[in-house]
Amino acid sequence: MSAQQRLNVLKQHLTPEQERANAVDPVNSMKEERGKASFDIRELTHLLDGGKGASELRERMMLEIERDPLFTMHDIHDISKNELRERTMEKFRSMIHHLQNESVDTFKKRMEVISLIDPGFWTRFGVHYGLFVGALQSNASPGQLSYWFEKGALSLSGMVGCFAMTEIGHGSNVPGLETTATFDEASDQFIIHTPTLTATKWWIGGAAHSATHASVFAQLIVNGKRYGTKVFVVPLRDPKTYNLLPGVNIGDIGKKMGRDGIDNGWIQFTNVRIPRGYMLQKHTKVSRSGEVIEPKLQQLTYGALLQGRVAMVVDSGNVSKKALTIAIRYAAIRRQFANSKANGIETKLLDYPIHQRRLMPLLAQAFAMHFTGSEMSAMYNNMMGRLESAGPNDPDMAEVLEMLKETHATSAGLKAFCTWNCLNTIEQCRQSCGGHGYSAYTGLAGMYNDFAVQCTWEGDNTILALQSGRYLISSYREAVAGKKLSPGVGYLNNLSTLIGKKCNVAKIEDIVTPEVIIEGWQVVCANVVKNAALEFEDCLKDGLDTDDAYEQCSQSRLYAARLHSYGYLFRRFAEGVAKVEGELKSVLMDVCLLYGLYTIEENAGAFLQYEYFTPKEIEYIRAQTNFLCKAVRDQAIPLVDSFNLTDYIINSPLGRHDGNAYVHYFDQVKRQNPQGEHPYFDRLIKPMLEREIDGGDYDDEAAGLESDDSDDETD
Amino acid sequence: MSAQQRLNVLKQHLTPEQERANAVDPVNSMKEERGKASFDIRELTHLLDGGKGASELRERMMLEIERDPLFTMHDIHDISKNELRERTMEKFRSMIHHLQNESVDTFKKRMEVISLIDPGFWTRFGVHYGLFVGALQSNASPGQLSYWFEKGALSLSGMVGCFAMTEIGHGSNVPGLETTATFDEASDQFIIHTPTLTATKWWIGGAAHSATHASVFAQLIVNGKRYGTKVFVVPLRDPKTYNLLPGVNIGDIGKKMGRDGIDNGWIQFTNVRIPRGYMLQKHTKVSRSGEVIEPKLQQLTYGALLQGRVAMVVDSGNVSKKALTIAIRYAAIRRQFANSKANGIETKLLDYPIHQRRLMPLLAQAFAMHFTGSEMSAMYNNMMGRLESAGPNDPDMAEVLEMLKETHATSAGLKAFCTWNCLNTIEQCRQSCGGHGYSAYTGLAGMYNDFAVQCTWEGDNTILALQSGRYLISSYREAVAGKKLSPGVGYLNNLSTLIGKKCNVAKIEDIVTPEVIIEGWQVVCANVVKNAALEFEDCLKDGLDTDDAYEQCSQSRLYAARLHSYGYLFRRFAEGVAKVEGELKSVLMDVCLLYGLYTIEENAGAFLQYEYFTPKEIEYIRAQTNFLCKAVRDQAIPLVDSFNLTDYIINSPLGRHDGNAYVHYFDQVKRQNPQGEHPYFDRLIKPMLEREIDGGDYDDEAAGLESDDSDDETD
Repeated sequence: MSAQQRLNVLKQHLTPEQERANAVDPVNSMKEERGKASFDIRELTHLLDGGKGASELRERMMLEIERDPLFTMHDIHDISKNELRERTMEKFRSMIHHLQNESVDTFKKRMEVISLIDPGFWTRFGVHYGLFVGALQSNASPGQLSYWFEKGALSLSGMVGCFAMTEIGHGSNVPGLETTATFDEASDQFIIHTPTLTATKWWIGGAAHSATHASVFAQLIVNGKRYGTKVFVVPLRDPKTYNLLPGVNIGDIGKKMGRDGIDNGWIQFTNVRIPRGYMLQKHTKVSRSGEVIEPKLQQLTYGALLQGRVAMVVDSGNVSKKALTIAIRYAAIRRQFANSKANGIETKLLDYPIHQRRLMPLLAQAFAMHFTGSEMSAMYNNMMGRLESAGPNDPDMAEVLEMLKETHATSAGLKAFCTWNCLNTIEQCRQSCGGHGYSAYTGLAGMYNDFAVQCTWEGDNTILALQSGRYLISSYREAVAGKKLSPGVGYLNNLSTLIGKKCNVAKIEDIVTPEVIIEGWQVVCANVVKNAALEFEDCLKDGLDTDDAYEQCSQSRLYAARLHSYGYLFRRFAEGVAKVEGELKSVLMDVCLLYGLYTIEENAGAFLQYEYFTPKEIEYIRAQTNFLCKAVRDQAIPLVDSFNLTDYIINSPLGRHDGNAYVHYFDQVKRQNPQGEHPYFDRLIKPMLEREIDGGDYDDEAAGLESDDSDDETD
Repeated sequence: MSAQQRLNVLKQHLTPEQERANAVDPVNSMKEERGKASFDIRELTHLLDGGKGASELRERMMLEIERDPLFTMHDIHDISKNELRERTMEKFRSMIHHLQNESVDTFKKRMEVISLIDPGFWTRFGVHYGLFVGALQSNASPGQLSYWFEKGALSLSGMVGCFAMTEIGHGSNVPGLETTATFDEASDQFIIHTPTLTATKWWIGGAAHSATHASVFAQLIVNGKRYGTKVFVVPLRDPKTYNLLPGVNIGDIGKKMGRDGIDNGWIQFTNVRIPRGYMLQKHTKVSRSGEVIEPKLQQLTYGALLQGRVAMVVDSGNVSKKALTIAIRYAAIRRQFANSKANGIETKLLDYPIHQRRLMPLLAQAFAMHFTGSEMSAMYNNMMGRLESAGPNDPDMAEVLEMLKETHATSAGLKAFCTWNCLNTIEQCRQSCGGHGYSAYTGLAGMYNDFAVQCTWEGDNTILALQSGRYLISSYREAVAGKKLSPGVGYLNNLSTLIGKKCNVAKIEDIVTPEVIIEGWQVVCANVVKNAALEFEDCLKDGLDTDDAYEQCSQSRLYAARLHSYGYLFRRFAEGVAKVEGELKSVLMDVCLLYGLYTIEENAGAFLQYEYFTPKEIEYIRAQTNFLCKAVRDQAIPLVDSFNLTDYIINSPLGRHDGNAYVHYFDQVKRQNPQGEHPYFDRLIKPMLEREIDGGDYDDEAAGLESDDSDDETD
């Protein structure tokens, strides 16, 4: 008898109950979904990773990290803040081996993988390498850079750095920081000082327990004159003992919403003296005699700061992929409510149209962020390459500055809207897992808490979105004045054709094409940007200065920036798909069109307001969005499989590759909460249950007082 | 010299720096805002509380709880889950004194205040009194109820209850629960059994460490026949020792996103026997001989379940008020960026138009939820009064059932949209506090984590919203058939006038009136409900059965329910304001109109689609929303003051009444994180900083291998 025959015989012997159990078995349900793949999953993985080699490198990293006992993650929700911080420092220390023994690209891939596993550790390590070393690279002269590197800034020998910019009273407004650095010519030193409570350095990652040195942002004061915020390296602790240096006061910021592995601290400086050479003098210089030489081009200093924003666009895509893998895999095995025709077999969540509506557009958005993140990284690297090779007198300097301006504005807007999108994706995924989304062990709650800070740090999202809006208004005005704009806002050069344009398709089905969707977004964005610009100009006419005028029209700026970001993300996605062929193109095109139609539906007001679509066309788009949700649903498991995140990375029983969610969930809850003695039965519960209750709280409430009856008798 | 003269002299002696410090002093900033009140704050407090007496009772409760050391809250973010749970049990025990010594209304007020202070405790206590005792009241016969009350269910002597409905594999689908209760006629007992892993009772609050008894929802099986889900009281533990009873297995669910004071557990029953009388038999009865008598009117059993939903509508308003008090007070003292004309004095966040846009509509929404919550409570109490007094043969029964149906659908939709609104409000408030919103001590992060579960429990929001949408469709069809509908959906009786109606105002300014906004929402909702109903009917025509047809049009149902909820909330708010007079009316009218315009703007697509407003009118509404944000901003501090939440309740230094946020924030961070020995310098940091780095990881990497040079030589 062949294996197949044996199986058939076995099947014949199943009772109806066993058959039903088989049908609802989570592992079977997952296999069934995987069987629907219309494309080669591995091929899509390579496409997303940027090639076979990149996928293999990432897989090597995932394996190495999973096997490293320091990176044990299943117990992460149950250890205390102090344990977590200590474990994070152990990882920090262990990372030096890799840093010194592997190529930059390999190490970057390692850190990218780690950012998905333990974002708190990633930040703590990034505080030194990204922020502290980054501040040196951006602000130190070549000689100073060598000095600090020789002192151990790169090798983490003898020093660990932190980045002391934010103050308790000052976040986004860097020029408004209060900490002072006053030049004392007599001693050739700077005096670093915290003049007020609000000047206390705050949120400084690594300050509480890790750092020996800080790059301190402070107001340069020479001979009583203020020269604005500059960067100073200030030693905080004796590296031999970790005792605080004189005048340095540091405390622990304590518990946060998430990322508790980072030891954020506060710092107050009380007349702390540092050598003049500890001011980083790549740009502004202070001579022995107190002469201050300021640079010609201020804006060149912030190029490196954009790196964090670009990374967050990429991270928003990656974290969304992780959250969606959990929610979509769970939806493939979770069943709820039996259809009357289904023989008592409950329906998969993924088969409910409303559940498809909850998750499929977010899956499409994750792809949009993926393609946009790749494009944004390339734009950044290109710009930085040009910036580094161009000297101040370079003939290309104007073009490079234009690139910097575009990268700055684009990364600002994308950082804001992508981190908002991702935070929303995590929460929607969490809610779509029902009650189990509220358990710590299913991972989405912690993911939300860890990710939430991305909407605030390295530029508050609202402020960044407004910057993007400001760029749109000024681009509009330049376009009107005849200037050719950069590609990202190039559509504003076609105002005369875009304003007033209506969708003009032969058949209504033609709406569902990348070309129409791109044009639609361009028409809407051109209108919205124009309105914001006109509102801005009205404010100027009313006598407001430029800054006040921008504040006054900030709601329109934010609105323009939001719509522009939708159009931008869609275009990047469509361009990415255009480069693909075959089966992959077909599935990705569905996902891309879903993203396009969903964003139109979500912003139907704008499309109707500027009459690009008619109400009837909007109704059609709504129906087609439903249809595409269903189409993408059929490929949903293969699509999340293509993200190629191992069970270790996912770290959620609901998101298990094998679909065996309940078994793994139950196991994890049991392992993390072993049964022990009752912790407080004798002290608290027993006395409550066994107390006397008949007499109330007091044994004789009359307490000798004559009753009202006897009072009456005396009358 | 008079005091005023002395003050003037003092002022003259201020240096410019001191003057500036005075101007930006947070306490002065807060006083300045409070001085803008255009109305009597106390009067508004009384209005919101429902009278002077109610305000005074609430104040008495706030004071009593604040003074109780068991209710210490400032350290709540730093204690472990185990400490929190033990402290929560201490509160539980202490609450019995009040329960036995004060009136029901006073105790209810106490619990309402506590729900804002410690929602985890509130739930743990509510599991016994709300869920367990509620299950007895809804499902026990009069004799059974007396039995359990005499046994100690009300007085918490000898027993503590929990509510075992949800299973790991079954949440929303109560009829699909797997746990079985099989009648064994021989012993006159039921056998309670967990047949599979997915039948494991899950999330059961109080199961891990508190409860002696559970009200277990299980499939009644008598003589092999299934009768659906019924409720059984099952003893879990010996109250003298807290040892688990035979066949009962219980474990701890462990860490959650929030509310960690609740000891949620899982329960597996293995052939646990209980007397026949432990099945609660108010409705379905099982006789000694195994005869099953089922009730005539199934739906009467769920009236009491609506109480939780109604409470969550009220809670959404209250928690929003708390979050907004923090964010708005902080925005009144936080300054960022100096206007060029402002002499270096930075601008209050509250003065930025974009910040007004972020918070003022949410403040308006909190008022809308307040008025709606009050109305919803009245509707519920009225319905329950009628339901309890009406016997099954009552001639009013049809009317009572209609009330039940309306209350059921309205509370379902409002529970969903109000809890979503509130969760969003908390997160927006958190983000609007910038980096400080990420600190645990500022309270909003924990508030988010505690509140998030409300979107899932007692009915997943999406499912409840769909129920509301189903009610709208069936109401529409009844209206078409000529039936007079209940007030909440009464506008569907006017379909012929509403469908196709355009806004028809003499002057565009007239749009900004409650009448036009109410009409606009009715027109839009009538259209959207009609479309959903037509889609549903098309599905029926295509041959789908009723349930499948409803599933198929679920996106339209959800959309209809969402828009209906906006219209409903606005109407309740407008009706509340209509009853007020004088200065209060004037300020509340601005808030109400802001809510109306904001909701229209957010849903502009629908208003344009059904052509109630023209694009030009929508532009006007956008501008007027800005204008009203500014108007409400001027009264923002007096408005949040009227919520009358003490600093103890607020429990956030950013939301301090006196405005002295930085001082209190710094103090709290220092108090909660006292400096101690470095926890791991010697073990982890010192070896890293002092390691040998010259030779790399290995002292001689060649390890005896001949160099390539010598190899070459042998050739």
